[in-house]
Amino acid sequence: MNRKNRLYFSSDYMAGAHPAILARLTEMNMVHSAGYGTDTFSEAARAKIRAACNAPEADVYFLVGGTQTNAVMIGTMLRPYQGVIAAESGHVSVHEAGAIEFGGHKVLTLPQKDGKLTAAAIRSCLDSYWADANHEHMVMPGMVYLSQPTEFGTLYSLAELREIREVCRTGGISLYVDGARLAYALACPENDVTLPDLAALCDAFYIGGTKCGALFGEAVVIPKHDFIPHLFTMIKQNGALLAKGFVAGIQFETLFTDDLYGKIGRNAIDAADRIRRALAEKGYSFAFPSPTNQIFITLTKERAAALSEAVEMGFWENVGDSHVIMRIATSWATQADDVDRLIEML
Amino acid sequence: MNRKNRLYFSSDYMAGAHPAILARLTEMNMVHSAGYGTDTFSEAARAKIRAACNAPEADVYFLVGGTQTNAVMIGTMLRPYQGVIAAESGHVSVHEAGAIEFGGHKVLTLPQKDGKLTAAAIRSCLDSYWADANHEHMVMPGMVYLSQPTEFGTLYSLAELREIREVCRTGGISLYVDGARLAYALACPENDVTLPDLAALCDAFYIGGTKCGALFGEAVVIPKHDFIPHLFTMIKQNGALLAKGFVAGIQFETLFTDDLYGKIGRNAIDAADRIRRALAEKGYSFAFPSPTNQIFITLTKERAAALSEAVEMGFWENVGDSHVIMRIATSWATQADDVDRLIEML
Amino acid sequence: MNRKNRLYFSSDYMAGAHPAILARLTEMNMVHSAGYGTDTFSEAARAKIRAACNAPEADVYFLVGGTQTNAVMIGTMLRPYQGVIAAESGHVSVHEAGAIEFGGHKVLTLPQKDGKLTAAAIRSCLDSYWADANHEHMVMPGMVYLSQPTEFGTLYSLAELREIREVCRTGGISLYVDGARLAYALACPENDVTLPDLAALCDAFYIGGTKCGALFGEAVVIPKHDFIPHLFTMIKQNGALLAKGFVAGIQFETLFTDDLYGKIGRNAIDAADRIRRALAEKGYSFAFPSPTNQIFITLTKERAAALSEAVEMGFWENVGDSHVIMRIATSWATQADDVDRLIEML
Amino acid sequence: MNRKNRLYFSSDYMAGAHPAILARLTEMNMVHSAGYGTDTFSEAARAKIRAACNAPEADVYFLVGGTQTNAVMIGTMLRPYQGVIAAESGHVSVHEAGAIEFGGHKVLTLPQKDGKLTAAAIRSCLDSYWADANHEHMVMPGMVYLSQPTEFGTLYSLAELREIREVCRTGGISLYVDGARLAYALACPENDVTLPDLAALCDAFYIGGTKCGALFGEAVVIPKHDFIPHLFTMIKQNGALLAKGFVAGIQFETLFTDDLYGKIGRNAIDAADRIRRALAEKGYSFAFPSPTNQIFITLTKERAAALSEAVEMGFWENVGDSHVIMRIATSWATQADDVDRLIEML
Repeated sequence: MNRKNRLYFSSDYMAGAHPAILARLTEMNMVHSAGYGTDTFSEAARAKIRAACNAPEADVYFLVGGTQTNAVMIGTMLRPYQGVIAAESGHVSVHEAGAIEFGGHKVLTLPQKDGKLTAAAIRSCLDSYWADANHEHMVMPGMVYLSQPTEFGTLYSLAELREIREVCRTGGISLYVDGARLAYALACPENDVTLPDLAALCDAFYIGGTKCGALFGEAVVIPKHDFIPHLFTMIKQNGALLAKGFVAGIQFETLFTDDLYGKIGRNAIDAADRIRRALAEKGYSFAFPSPTNQIFITLTKERAAALSEAVEMGFWENVGDSHVIMRIATSWATQADDVDRLIEML
Repeated sequence: MNRKNRLYFSSDYMAGAHPAILARLTEMNMVHSAGYGTDTFSEAARAKIRAACNAPEADVYFLVGGTQTNAVMIGTMLRPYQGVIAAESGHVSVHEAGAIEFGGHKVLTLPQKDGKLTAAAIRSCLDSYWADANHEHMVMPGMVYLSQPTEFGTLYSLAELREIREVCRTGGISLYVDGARLAYALACPENDVTLPDLAALCDAFYIGGTKCGALFGEAVVIPKHDFIPHLFTMIKQNGALLAKGFVAGIQFETLFTDDLYGKIGRNAIDAADRIRRALAEKGYSFAFPSPTNQIFITLTKERAAALSEAVEMGFWENVGDSHVIMRIATSWATQADDVDRLIEML
Repeated sequence: MNRKNRLYFSSDYMAGAHPAILARLTEMNMVHSAGYGTDTFSEAARAKIRAACNAPEADVYFLVGGTQTNAVMIGTMLRPYQGVIAAESGHVSVHEAGAIEFGGHKVLTLPQKDGKLTAAAIRSCLDSYWADANHEHMVMPGMVYLSQPTEFGTLYSLAELREIREVCRTGGISLYVDGARLAYALACPENDVTLPDLAALCDAFYIGGTKCGALFGEAVVIPKHDFIPHLFTMIKQNGALLAKGFVAGIQFETLFTDDLYGKIGRNAIDAADRIRRALAEKGYSFAFPSPTNQIFITLTKERAAALSEAVEMGFWENVGDSHVIMRIATSWATQADDVDRLIEML
Repeated sequence: MNRKNRLYFSSDYMAGAHPAILARLTEMNMVHSAGYGTDTFSEAARAKIRAACNAPEADVYFLVGGTQTNAVMIGTMLRPYQGVIAAESGHVSVHEAGAIEFGGHKVLTLPQKDGKLTAAAIRSCLDSYWADANHEHMVMPGMVYLSQPTEFGTLYSLAELREIREVCRTGGISLYVDGARLAYALACPENDVTLPDLAALCDAFYIGGTKCGALFGEAVVIPKHDFIPHLFTMIKQNGALLAKGFVAGIQFETLFTDDLYGKIGRNAIDAADRIRRALAEKGYSFAFPSPTNQIFITLTKERAAALSEAVEMGFWENVGDSHVIMRIATSWATQADDVDRLIEML
């Protein structure tokens, strides 16, 4: 099978940008803009994001990628003696090459269920810390890191998030949500957590661009103005400040115009739902109960190899000697025709 | 004067990307690519850069911005007990919000002349360190940081660079060159340092994209393969790894196709030369002998204010109470008409 | 019961120094010595330690405390992209307030059995890392941290250590042993790991002073000369260099004269063995099979409270709602009379 | 000349501890104490230091050495985006192997006069920072580091300190004083800055033990309780927490009993004053106007070599090709007979 006919469902960051974004970048290309995110496009994008989040006082910053955003935010939200609570499957725990520790902080991992933390586990972690006679010799939990959707494509419900927020509030720690794939949560019928909910419940979160239709970029939202003083300088210090901040600003302005971010999410979810239904009908086994744009199926190694001839999927992990978990991911770029062809092959 | 008629000469990162880059990004937008710089565009860009540098074994990495690149490279080229020698006017010394120190390393600043370090000053710094009876209680110089062109728009000659290289070699330290505006050095008639020269003389350097026609991006060249083992992981750890690395790859492939990087440089230098000649004819006073795309002129505050009505220039610094140094910068985006209009106004 | 009659078995760092050490410090008090460990006492101590370890080329450094020593050694033995493998119960994992992460490195925790790691678990950790398709996005295991005896008072056998060494060798990673209580391992009849064994098997280890009879101090032994270049400067940079290094030197010279370190260990082990036998006879339940100077017993809360009236023990942890694990520790300072009195009370 | 007859004036940390300290350590050696500075000796020492400083609410911590104390205090008093202002001759600027940068912070050096900063220079540094249009890309001055006496043995007057305090107050930054040799300032007739003055003017300072009669130890005084929350844990995290904190506590309790700290200072100052008078009479040239326990004289290289046969002095620096500056330091340990002999030789 030649490359042209091959199907690509391995990830959601394999193609460029949503055409509307490229068109807007092209249209505005020769406009002279101020640097470092102080331009009018970035200001307009901030205004639209604040409106979408119902967070009129929010500070909004545009960073480049997810690991960078997590490292900057966790590093600036914690004091040196504190660590961040995360699921043992969290991106910051596993796949950021130790960026959080490189910044001086311990990731305090808790067991996960379908990629999620529970309020009870967080409370227990806090209680154990404070009850330990030696806690002053230990790393104090200072914040919680969640991802929505999680690394396994699952979702926190509003009730779960509220419960976690309450544990954080009573424990005096912050709540931060990694929304690398947030478009695919927001567009999901099972989801009941809106942007205003996130703004109401989190001390900071980010709206993912890289995996949701932008060339690059993540929009950090800090609902309470100046919650992190001098964050601009710390972004610079972390090498995370874009000189041409307007390139991110234009992208997010476009994403938050005419509900493009919603459309991008729905395209992916519609495609994923069709694939999920077909998989279920054909008796495939799902590894995680994911309702978002990532589908995890358990296959024999032979079946996985056969399918992979025609479809690029993501390898997730081995299950014993005979089976593997493979990931099928849809995105803003997924074409209906390709979904048809994939379903045929399954 | 309305915004439309205003002239913009304040910096070289005020507009988007060279149209050829945007066109190529648009053309390749829906191609499925591997992540993290392992894609074919990035590979092609690397091959072209290796060829342009006459460095067939070079490792080439694409990072996002200058401060990030400096922080990653200095942080990975030094051992913990070492610091980096830089001019007191160097970007790493002044305008990176302490990113180098944030990474654990002292910037060992030396006096500059027109933004440049001398081989003699570096040798003297090394000699002083090793001659000091207490040097084991001090930060060992471990590398030299230069910028070409410098922050003042000046250039190191090939002879100067060779002399510095020799001091580094005999002193057992590394040489790193920040080429944020390298296109504007390479295109400059006064310049005699080529890309192959840089590859022959440096342990690492970067070819600037952000200020030389790209939306963003800097290409790190490490002539000796694996000079910095596991740099990929350390880039990730620094939050500097692009998920869609192909977006940088496409840009650098385009910059190094049909000599676009050269054309971009020449457009800026031609414009700057015309402006310089006009300034000289009209008796303006130059603050630094810069032959590249940045021109620094000393003006009375009144004259600066008057000119600024029509032309956006960059404020550089006050000189006493009555004068200021202003910067005029050209770039790939500078239009001949705008140069004409600027010259008329001077 | 008044303070005078109270028995103290809570820890091994509750009294000053072995009288021979204080006597020697007093005797040498007015001798003028060079600073920073370059004095003749430190040199003599190094020579004696090299001889005791059968490691004539070893570098020996005297640091102040255990957390400091672990942080300095792990921080200087790892490269930035690496982490340290440790038992989840290891001191560096739990009770150093995140000192290792503060230095930029992840602690890669593995499950423990009686406080010990197995060679198989380490090999599996290495294999998993290298087999993972995403390992370049993960923290590379760069060394193994063990404690001998462990935090639970247990011992690695020579066979176990050799097996771990072999896994490290084939995996290309370093082995470091925390010997905070090493005297109490060396003096233990069950122990078959000698100082020369440690020197033959480890890339670095330390011989504990603080908990083994010194006022303070830990002697780092690096069998291969210059295995960590410029360690002196990095010790200084970590704030761990003693100005009056001779105070540590005198102490370790004394500890390694006339087998004082051995005597200190044997005093504690003899006392612990007597207590263990009494506990066993009286039917107490041991929480861990510790043969060294720390004894962990599981008691009802009532029994623990009653005993604590007369004996200060260390609280270890709760076991369900009704029981606790308490620690009884002996040391160089434990008096035979006090052991008699304790046994009577049990 | 044999070692026995040699005179030692090279530094103030060449001998053990004041005999009263060793006696007290010996006397209290077998007392069982709590760990980590929570013991009764440390509490008593804190009470005495609070009384001596007229700072009843002060937090007092005992650390081990000067570089460690500076690194911990500067690291915990600054936020990540801030740096510390220091004289270019300050210990933190030059002789701590980059410990401050290792902790992530830039040392913002200002020119010195006789080792001292001026309030005007600090104000100017602050003004320049805030006036710079790019200050958000630069390191914000967050605190001032002074040493009393300075590295050149000179003293800040109370008027000078008050002026600096006022600049700090209006600039919103903290003031920290390194008192490694504070006993020799306090005992100096020229000095008009008392411990209560320091407590009234500083946000934190330390009372040096290592160079003022202790085996080791520095007492950090933070006049305002909880000015640095969770400092205990951060001390641990920096590897700076003594397990046997009582060893430091006993020493400082002794230093602040019966004015021992004053006596130690006066012994050194009396000796230094006698030497200074003799030097002046004999026409020696003083390099710095130091009234404390350090005397800096400029000698021809020949004269320095000749004197050094009989007297160990500290080499300070070369002055041109023909002269050197040598340091003569007195201390608690300086004997009147040795001063007589030294004066004879001069």
